[in-house]
Amino acid sequence: MCGMKNETTLHVQSGVQMPATVNADAVRRLRQKKRALLSVEAYVAGILSGNRSLLGRAITLIESTLSAHQAIAEQVVSACLPHAGASLRLGITGVPGVGKSTFIEALGKQLIGQGRRLAVLAIDPSSARSKGSILGDKTRMDKLAVSPHVFIRPSPAGSSLGGVAAKTRESIILCEAAGFDTIFIETVGVGQSETLVSSMVDFFLLLMLSGAGDELQGIKRGIMEMADSIAITKADGENSKQAQVAAQQYKNALHLFPMPQSGFLPQVLPCSALSGKNIPQLWQLVEKYVAQTQKTGFFQRKRKQQAKYWLYDTINSRLQHKFYENESLKSELKQLEHQVLQQEISPFLAAKKILGSFGL
Amino acid sequence: MCGMKNETTLHVQSGVQMPATVNADAVRRLRQKKRALLSVEAYVAGILSGNRSLLGRAITLIESTLSAHQAIAEQVVSACLPHAGASLRLGITGVPGVGKSTFIEALGKQLIGQGRRLAVLAIDPSSARSKGSILGDKTRMDKLAVSPHVFIRPSPAGSSLGGVAAKTRESIILCEAAGFDTIFIETVGVGQSETLVSSMVDFFLLLMLSGAGDELQGIKRGIMEMADSIAITKADGENSKQAQVAAQQYKNALHLFPMPQSGFLPQVLPCSALSGKNIPQLWQLVEKYVAQTQKTGFFQRKRKQQAKYWLYDTINSRLQHKFYENESLKSELKQLEHQVLQQEISPFLAAKKILGSFGL
Repeated sequence: MCGMKNETTLHVQSGVQMPATVNADAVRRLRQKKRALLSVEAYVAGILSGNRSLLGRAITLIESTLSAHQAIAEQVVSACLPHAGASLRLGITGVPGVGKSTFIEALGKQLIGQGRRLAVLAIDPSSARSKGSILGDKTRMDKLAVSPHVFIRPSPAGSSLGGVAAKTRESIILCEAAGFDTIFIETVGVGQSETLVSSMVDFFLLLMLSGAGDELQGIKRGIMEMADSIAITKADGENSKQAQVAAQQYKNALHLFPMPQSGFLPQVLPCSALSGKNIPQLWQLVEKYVAQTQKTGFFQRKRKQQAKYWLYDTINSRLQHKFYENESLKSELKQLEHQVLQQEISPFLAAKKILGSFGL
Repeated sequence: MCGMKNETTLHVQSGVQMPATVNADAVRRLRQKKRALLSVEAYVAGILSGNRSLLGRAITLIESTLSAHQAIAEQVVSACLPHAGASLRLGITGVPGVGKSTFIEALGKQLIGQGRRLAVLAIDPSSARSKGSILGDKTRMDKLAVSPHVFIRPSPAGSSLGGVAAKTRESIILCEAAGFDTIFIETVGVGQSETLVSSMVDFFLLLMLSGAGDELQGIKRGIMEMADSIAITKADGENSKQAQVAAQQYKNALHLFPMPQSGFLPQVLPCSALSGKNIPQLWQLVEKYVAQTQKTGFFQRKRKQQAKYWLYDTINSRLQHKFYENESLKSELKQLEHQVLQQEISPFLAAKKILGSFGL
């Protein structure tokens, strides 16, 4: 299904075609140094045939800042769009140390055992910057990574959060077109990424450690109320009982929250990636959620709301980017911000002034 | 301190000056029909002298959509700004029926008994539209409303939420300049207003009913994690025990949440406006929070962050407003939105198209 066989039959895009005199070895060396661009049709055909290598290369174009790459990526996404949407999109969040990778590996193994095809996309620009791309690192999910039914993709290093999230959403389209029927979006629950993730997934799973002490300090407030369910991880060995207690505590706490719009009361399960405890039950929970919300129509409504959200979010981000990138604005804004902080001018008057300078 | 005495000494602004022949009765009738505009200096002098009537009229100008009113309002706000900031700003949220008005009346009475001056500003455009201005209705806080040390102001009917919130923040400036050292911002915890309110207050208090059943359905998810503390209302008579149990449950639940940035662990108190139970203790809690966060510097940092937030929020809202109000855009956008919802075009490409139409 995957890889080089399809790839060799694809033609190289005209703009970067090689002169006939270049020998095969030189082409290989060039390829190793920098992958040649293919035609839109080649990427699309590769993706639709389930070719993970071409899927990965197309996502690289989505992530690229070069306008030539962007132009191809747009067309590839558009061509894949009619083939997208049929997957189950699961957001998985938890602080570092909660055991996300092993959990995803355990759950993922079960799913591919059931005949599912799994794509794991990771969003974490901050730790990607500071510590290398630790999230979604293939070596941390080595059993999954070798399966032909799994595609793992970390977020690009050094990008802004909003940018990464936008690109992740387009990557979901390509993964779905490539036949992946289950998409995991993995994030660290410490930043702003969860709001973005919850706006692109069907089900939001929060991973927590038992012994809600110092570990909890790292997680962002508000995430718990966003979760469709919670898994208490590492519920094995000496930790078993503690995890059970923690699960009950969270369960009680969640009962105090107002019912989510989905109509699905969030559940809490102690899980072990090591022993496999409650991993099948957790997936049953997800399937129950999907069945229930598809029946009520919430599932479909949420997807439409998400699409609308991303339309307007993209427009608004772009408007702001265009405005703030103006060089003459920057110094004026900096000065006004200073005056606002010194309480010399109200935020509203400062905003009016800066907008007035640009005829707005 | 308040009212007509100061008012009569103020000069009428030139633009609306009356001819000398107009008799006093005609002036009175005209005033009743429509208040004359005063000069900026007159409003500012009135506000700084603590004149509630002029404070109210200046806030009306802030709320007005007429550019002549806006021009005066801006200057009044600017002139008041150096005299603002010295109050304690408290956000109070709860669903209809939780007993906000009676709670505010009980707490307010205590505060004015301690020599404080209290301004109550209410934000609730939705119910203002549907059921008349029920929130902050003076008749619902009749004991407070008659005190010369209290100023009560409901939000204007029919405004957009963002608009009301922006105007409320400017109103806070005027109230502080008028010597009100305690500002309550009252909202219904069912919409989006809480995020806006939490961005303009020092302390966010959530009012809840015991018997967390159907009542809870109305409250928005995420609010609980935003609260600096929770008061369980109507903890009197037969309800006493139930309120005590609920308080303990919420207390347990809040312990499971990550510690807020403030470093202040949210408390839960069963309160009764009827018996006065825990009303003084609640205020001690607020004072403890203020003392603690002022010591750590969080209080001041939060205020600065809020000012910055409002600067950028105002700029961004205005940019969007300018863009979306374009008539030729509206039909194109509607069509693209339809295509996005039908999955005929990706949200990102649709956004790019519409921005491209406007050279952005």
